[in-house]
Amino acid sequence: MSKLDDIVSLCKRRGFIFPGSDVYGGMAGTWDFGPLGVMLKNNLVNTWWSHWVDQRDDMFGIDAAIIMNPTTWEASGHTATFADPLIECNECHSRFRADKLVDGYSESITTEEFKAINPACPNCGKTNWGSIRKFNMMFSTHVGAVLPEDESGSESDKELARRSIAYLRPETAQGIFTNYKNVVDTIYPSVPFGLCQFGKSFRNEISPRDYILRDRECSQFEIEYFVHPNTWAENFETIRKEYLDFLTNKLGLKAENIHELEVPEEDRAFYSKRTIDIMYNYPNGEEELMGIAYRTDYDLSNVAKASGKNMEYRDKNTGETFVPHVIEPSMGLERAILAILSEAYYEDEMDGETRVVLKLPENLAPYKFCVSPLLKNKPELVEKAKAVYAKLKAKYTFVTWDDSGNIGKRYRKQDEIGTPKCVVIDFDTLEDDTVTVRDRDTAEQVRVKIAEL
Amino acid sequence: MSKLDDIVSLCKRRGFIFPGSDVYGGMAGTWDFGPLGVMLKNNLVNTWWSHWVDQRDDMFGIDAAIIMNPTTWEASGHTATFADPLIECNECHSRFRADKLVDGYSESITTEEFKAINPACPNCGKTNWGSIRKFNMMFSTHVGAVLPEDESGSESDKELARRSIAYLRPETAQGIFTNYKNVVDTIYPSVPFGLCQFGKSFRNEISPRDYILRDRECSQFEIEYFVHPNTWAENFETIRKEYLDFLTNKLGLKAENIHELEVPEEDRAFYSKRTIDIMYNYPNGEEELMGIAYRTDYDLSNVAKASGKNMEYRDKNTGETFVPHVIEPSMGLERAILAILSEAYYEDEMDGETRVVLKLPENLAPYKFCVSPLLKNKPELVEKAKAVYAKLKAKYTFVTWDDSGNIGKRYRKQDEIGTPKCVVIDFDTLEDDTVTVRDRDTAEQVRVKIAEL
Repeated sequence: MSKLDDIVSLCKRRGFIFPGSDVYGGMAGTWDFGPLGVMLKNNLVNTWWSHWVDQRDDMFGIDAAIIMNPTTWEASGHTATFADPLIECNECHSRFRADKLVDGYSESITTEEFKAINPACPNCGKTNWGSIRKFNMMFSTHVGAVLPEDESGSESDKELARRSIAYLRPETAQGIFTNYKNVVDTIYPSVPFGLCQFGKSFRNEISPRDYILRDRECSQFEIEYFVHPNTWAENFETIRKEYLDFLTNKLGLKAENIHELEVPEEDRAFYSKRTIDIMYNYPNGEEELMGIAYRTDYDLSNVAKASGKNMEYRDKNTGETFVPHVIEPSMGLERAILAILSEAYYEDEMDGETRVVLKLPENLAPYKFCVSPLLKNKPELVEKAKAVYAKLKAKYTFVTWDDSGNIGKRYRKQDEIGTPKCVVIDFDTLEDDTVTVRDRDTAEQVRVKIAEL
Repeated sequence: MSKLDDIVSLCKRRGFIFPGSDVYGGMAGTWDFGPLGVMLKNNLVNTWWSHWVDQRDDMFGIDAAIIMNPTTWEASGHTATFADPLIECNECHSRFRADKLVDGYSESITTEEFKAINPACPNCGKTNWGSIRKFNMMFSTHVGAVLPEDESGSESDKELARRSIAYLRPETAQGIFTNYKNVVDTIYPSVPFGLCQFGKSFRNEISPRDYILRDRECSQFEIEYFVHPNTWAENFETIRKEYLDFLTNKLGLKAENIHELEVPEEDRAFYSKRTIDIMYNYPNGEEELMGIAYRTDYDLSNVAKASGKNMEYRDKNTGETFVPHVIEPSMGLERAILAILSEAYYEDEMDGETRVVLKLPENLAPYKFCVSPLLKNKPELVEKAKAVYAKLKAKYTFVTWDDSGNIGKRYRKQDEIGTPKCVVIDFDTLEDDTVTVRDRDTAEQVRVKIAEL
């Protein structure tokens, strides 16, 4: 098994991540967080939100709806261009993403380029292809009193159905730009300031793949940092350094596994003057973990045009008015979770057996302590252990109880779910009120007084 | 203005809640949380999650995808029956929810009953109605490589489009039932245990209304508490009492504004042996805040039937196997937010003027402290105030700075956003290191040593 397979297996076995709708055979491109996964996810979200929003004076939260007015996606360009090239086999009618069937092409591949190579259909092996069609990756739905039969009904019914189309947001960013004006009009923060959002985004991937890296439903951490146009370069640098610090110090990612990729001009969005992809060394190779893009005033200007409203900001001291420019650091939750798990996953040898351990940073570990009686059939040990458990739970909340199997098995289990410390109550505890505290990473055991835990 | 109008206005004016996609003229039935609203929402979510999940030993979290395998909704009955009665005016083609145009009818109104009353069309005034059609409130979408033109294409294209239909979940509960088996197989909790989920749900209301009470996109707090069938009655009672305590002690809702409604047998879902609607006395009248339902083994049995998998639980001590029964407390986030705001909103008279104040419980207030210099044009006061701000921010995080307008205006603003304490630095502070601490609810001011804050 590859390391990724090992992680996938651990995540399912221990209740971190299950395939979405697993009991019904799954739903491609969706994943559910189990009890341990929710704890890890909440720890990540709280770590991020506390660091980037609560502890700062220049950042504010936003939480916009997933279903937005469709003008949003006209203005942002998503309706026209957020599309992958779809190709269909004329023989078996299987559909594929064209650029994934041939080497060295991007989403902009043409039918001519594709047919010049003319790969075999992965399903039936034939080479009878249709033309490439644009497949818009936004999930669409109908909002309001529209019935399925309207789409094949009278012209006015069809028109009603057409006008009711809305989309699940393909990114959280536009929920920030559409709220920018209301925020400035209500709390009037001083530039530079950031609006931060955490929430779900949806992309109808033709072929979801790579575990939780390329899923159809994901969560994003996005910041739009609004700056004076003259200061974008230094603000970009500051945020870049702060984010790298965050990745290493708060998420526990090693600098050697992170690689900054300056995106060259020809690969950047036309409006961006600088974009950095922050790559992580995942088990199956380097992949984007997050990006930082300088987006100029592209988005706010689009909103201004499409809404007819003024997006100018008036400087509190100088009175100068300008449309702020934007630095956008954007990170996917699932990509961060997989990076954290990849970094934390270790196998070593212990007592002649392979041990699996998740060396999660303490702030991200689901449980901080596990409390156990050495033997579960000794009531006096169990009673004492329960008292220690209650005491730790009241103080640290994230404490688990384990009296299953033998002590060795419990250690293995706690290692696998990343619990930093195991506290074991034994017969000595009854004598001198000390417990054994075993360290997850080193497996070293020390005696500690209960009062000093 | 009604009290509800006052709350809506305050929420927009101070950045709690904006209409969704406001800049583009809105998107009916959606709402966005602004900077203050996100803080209130996060405080509520954290209060709920800490109380019901983290601090308990019998509750575990789940976070399932919004887009689920469509079998989920066949099995749960939503595909067949989660529908409102839609009626169309044959004259102007406006569509309405039939039971909302006539008094005293429920969703089960028939065309005959409707036509016997024959109300005027609210849009054109005529009385030429079509037949009532069932309008399923689930938002549908297509998952996978399906193009809009497929629906009017060849038979195989149409079939492809049909098979790709999926829905946005109309409730979070099914994301728990579909994960029940994976949870039992991985962490094997002792019965009774609860699985808890917080997340978005979507309902395509024909006419969204009542501010955030009846929106198309909402968030739910749901617990499915799995119990031995013989113990449902006492578990129901325990959870009922615990939840009422939670509403009053943690959310600050007064018992006199909460009213338990035992749902009579004829109004309950056929499988439920007991349901309580917990009503709150909202400004515009009593409305459901949450419900507690005993759902027997209805859901797990449906999942078992539709999946062919065994949902039995094996008791750890007795070895008895049984399908657990379920108690389901379910609360809407938006309904809770509006109850909290309604409870907290007061107007009183102060210095001859009407004062608006949000008397939010401390755990829910966005900011715990506001720090201000008495005068903003005295550098020595500003400098000292900034030092106090830094000290409080490091300790309590949720601290805001305000040096706008005069001190009276600042108090009014902090009253409106529910900040419990305002700390003001004045010339005496420079002498004796004391500050004025002003209480939001009483407007009383006391002198406190900075070291004792």
